[in-house]
Amino acid sequence: MENGTVNGYEMDTPKNITIKGILSLLMESIDDNNHSRSVISLGMGDPTAHSCFHTTHVAPEAVVDALQSGKFNGYAPTVGLPQTRRAIAEYLTRDLPYKLSSDDVFITSGCTQAIDVALAMLARPGANILLPRPGFPIYELCAAFRHLEVRHFDLLPEKGWEVDFDTIEAIADQNTVAFVIINPGNPCGNVYSYQHLKKIAETAKKLKVLVIADEVYGHLVFGRNPFVPMGVFGSIAPVLTLGSLSKRWIVPGWRLGWFVTSDPSGKFRNPKVVERIKKYFDILGGPATFIQAAVPGILELTDEVFFKKTINTLKQSSDICFDRLKEIPCISCPYKPEGSMAVMMKLNLSLLEDISDDIDFCFKLAREEFVIILPGTAVGLKNWLRITFAVDPVALEEALGRVKSFCLRHSKQFE
Amino acid sequence: MENGTVNGYEMDTPKNITIKGILSLLMESIDDNNHSRSVISLGMGDPTAHSCFHTTHVAPEAVVDALQSGKFNGYAPTVGLPQTRRAIAEYLTRDLPYKLSSDDVFITSGCTQAIDVALAMLARPGANILLPRPGFPIYELCAAFRHLEVRHFDLLPEKGWEVDFDTIEAIADQNTVAFVIINPGNPCGNVYSYQHLKKIAETAKKLKVLVIADEVYGHLVFGRNPFVPMGVFGSIAPVLTLGSLSKRWIVPGWRLGWFVTSDPSGKFRNPKVVERIKKYFDILGGPATFIQAAVPGILELTDEVFFKKTINTLKQSSDICFDRLKEIPCISCPYKPEGSMAVMMKLNLSLLEDISDDIDFCFKLAREEFVIILPGTAVGLKNWLRITFAVDPVALEEALGRVKSFCLRHSKQFE
Repeated sequence: MENGTVNGYEMDTPKNITIKGILSLLMESIDDNNHSRSVISLGMGDPTAHSCFHTTHVAPEAVVDALQSGKFNGYAPTVGLPQTRRAIAEYLTRDLPYKLSSDDVFITSGCTQAIDVALAMLARPGANILLPRPGFPIYELCAAFRHLEVRHFDLLPEKGWEVDFDTIEAIADQNTVAFVIINPGNPCGNVYSYQHLKKIAETAKKLKVLVIADEVYGHLVFGRNPFVPMGVFGSIAPVLTLGSLSKRWIVPGWRLGWFVTSDPSGKFRNPKVVERIKKYFDILGGPATFIQAAVPGILELTDEVFFKKTINTLKQSSDICFDRLKEIPCISCPYKPEGSMAVMMKLNLSLLEDISDDIDFCFKLAREEFVIILPGTAVGLKNWLRITFAVDPVALEEALGRVKSFCLRHSKQFE
Repeated sequence: MENGTVNGYEMDTPKNITIKGILSLLMESIDDNNHSRSVISLGMGDPTAHSCFHTTHVAPEAVVDALQSGKFNGYAPTVGLPQTRRAIAEYLTRDLPYKLSSDDVFITSGCTQAIDVALAMLARPGANILLPRPGFPIYELCAAFRHLEVRHFDLLPEKGWEVDFDTIEAIADQNTVAFVIINPGNPCGNVYSYQHLKKIAETAKKLKVLVIADEVYGHLVFGRNPFVPMGVFGSIAPVLTLGSLSKRWIVPGWRLGWFVTSDPSGKFRNPKVVERIKKYFDILGGPATFIQAAVPGILELTDEVFFKKTINTLKQSSDICFDRLKEIPCISCPYKPEGSMAVMMKLNLSLLEDISDDIDFCFKLAREEFVIILPGTAVGLKNWLRITFAVDPVALEEALGRVKSFCLRHSKQFE
């Protein structure tokens, strides 16, 4: 405890930018006493802030029933309640060519904890993991804490943000343990085709690595491609499927996620592997037992109408987002979003007079227009912007109007 | 993925025994089809299995209100909701000579996740942590996953399970980062005096280490010593206080815990330390937002009568436990429990005919009498037993009667 530090605490703190960290700084940069207009955030992927996005009545009712029964105040098994594991296995099996069992499903505190489980399980001295760029920075942060080396492969904006297999093959080596696919895509709003997912599995097989499939936005698609779970190709290469109730049921704060071995060839059924996963769950907190107990009812009783309404609202707001941004010369969108809740837009700085980069753009926008947008740097792409369109349409129109004013005001005057 | 294993998954799996693991084996060893008597478990520290232990109506009502308000379906800050942090700071401050602030409190998924935070934050190459023997094996398991070397110091049964300061000083070195105190004690049922806790703080100061104070059983005391939080001595040495609603409110399945820097000298207020803790919380799941939102109401509205009733029931059942076990020659209890929900009993194997050790004792007891007791080996003391007395008194009497029959049947016949 020398020099005001505590036992080397300051050592090894990952240097990563976090989305929440940069959004907080943007929010703090707004002078609260000096604006009459409301602050509109297109930064966070939390649709519950907007009244047009709300969960189905079925979900809280099931939780209240479980809580009021008084039967679920005790500990659940650390890997999850058996009925919850079984219900999620059945839910995911609907879209697979094989049957998942309860033993394949481990219940986590949201998809975030599922990411940690996946990376912690794969960490060993010298191992590396391949992450997409742009991506979701919790992966980088988690890899840093779990001592897993990160290498990045590119997603190709001009090809619908498909995986650049050439970079993957160039950066993978014998210490590569897995690569990560986020589909439907965050931050890009892409939805991969069956063929592309198959090619991903074949690449994993060739490289002898796992695929970590982050499907937290599973089923939230509204474009050409249907949602195909990566687990469909689990017989080509083992897949770890990560998901949660958060996005499809619009309850991100409930922290109910899953880590699933979508692996019909049974690589993960090795007793030593299972033992390691189970022991790791013994040190995790996991979600509340009564929320777990509500999951079978929620999965069974949620109406298709609810899902369709969410999809329609997302499609409408993504259309607004894409159309309004097309009107702004210094912003270009190479790909119209077809899923998830976010889209990446490219800044053309040569058209702007006094903006040095994406971070400068976002801070000036926050201060001048009270609109919060995430700089692309936070997700790995400098001089891009990530815009969350899971926002009330009126607020979204208003925010994008302000972005347009801002851009016009800062445009270079060509003669 | 050679030899049926997945990318070295089987490497580095900690070899530790877990309480849940050994209790499962004991339960499985009972032949379901071959007994008419009920199985009684004195193994797990989950009182919700018994109707005499139940939470106050205030707690689920507050959760239902928070859930039904529809305001808490979204993400909380990863360190916890501000009002929850503030309420817990105020709750803990009641027993401290200084004021905790919201910023000292981080909300976790139960005390288990608080343990992980503490150990992960302290881990660095070469560091070691001192753990009590007997102890709570999640610490050992967590240290193994977080790459923190474990060294054990003894608790002294003949001195009310006080810390053996001679071993602590002998095993600590310049790489020691902390030692762990569980008070009220699990597995021993001890409650440390003010003077002993002060001496613990002074030892920590001398060794220049932190104290991790596991107070998950805080306030659950029914003997001579009142409960004194370790944080009282935070000005002598920095304290990390770990706790939860689990035991005092009898809701272990709600997974609502806290990691608190009880540190009036401000060592933890170093911005780099705070940044590291905050980033670590970004990769954790954390508890549900609506449960967090219920905490201020629960802390404010819970009646003293509820707490007293739990204490009385625990005192009654601990008395039954102590008195009944005194009647059994081969079992001795060096210390009458004064807190928590468990007690350690010593086996005198020389009086038993065909029992080789504590594990053999527990398996034969399970198979012959359908009573589950945790072998002391699981908590670090071979040939001891850990008995959880947070059990319905009738079932407890019945179970201990069976233990007595078992012991008498297996006693050596002296002439």
